[in-house]
Amino acid sequence: MLILITYDVSTVDSAGRKRLAKVAKKCTDHGQRVQNSVFECILDSTQFRRLKYELEELIDKKEDSLRFYNLGDNYKKKVEHIGAKETYDMESPLIL
Amino acid sequence: MLILITYDVSTVDSAGRKRLAKVAKKCTDHGQRVQNSVFECILDSTQFRRLKYELEELIDKKEDSLRFYNLGDNYKKKVEHIGAKETYDMESPLIL
Repeated sequence: MLILITYDVSTVDSAGRKRLAKVAKKCTDHGQRVQNSVFECILDSTQFRRLKYELEELIDKKEDSLRFYNLGDNYKKKVEHIGAKETYDMESPLIL
Repeated sequence: MLILITYDVSTVDSAGRKRLAKVAKKCTDHGQRVQNSVFECILDSTQFRRLKYELEELIDKKEDSLRFYNLGDNYKKKVEHIGAKETYDMESPLIL
């Protein structure tokens, strides 16, 4: 299933930027970065539970916000894009 | 249905910040800002088409990226949150 992960943190300080980098690394290990703080990951239920747990360990729960959206298995028609192409493909190959 | 809208723009320059403000205003007129560049809107098909068209007019398509995720009508179990509570509630009351 497609799990969309969005992450919000103040990246004004270096600690926040480091946390964002760690979250991004963790998510792109499991999928694709499509916007600065938006990641699309193809996961099964077990992988999803594990990734959630691992991300929870990385963030500062008082400062940061993580949201997960489950788009299910038939997600292709549920996603639309307008504007500039994502520039993150080169950094993190799409794994589907 | 719940439409998730994510927006990516370089807010380093003031033109980008202005575009983000306009996109945020347009989206919060139809729903709720849950993260800095993530908006949840409850829309029917006609409203969704219109909002997409209006947002397309606001962004710089060469610079900015807009993504739409259709979570359908039974979206409540598809959304999870970890960490800091969204701080945008006060600006834009939740309309469900």
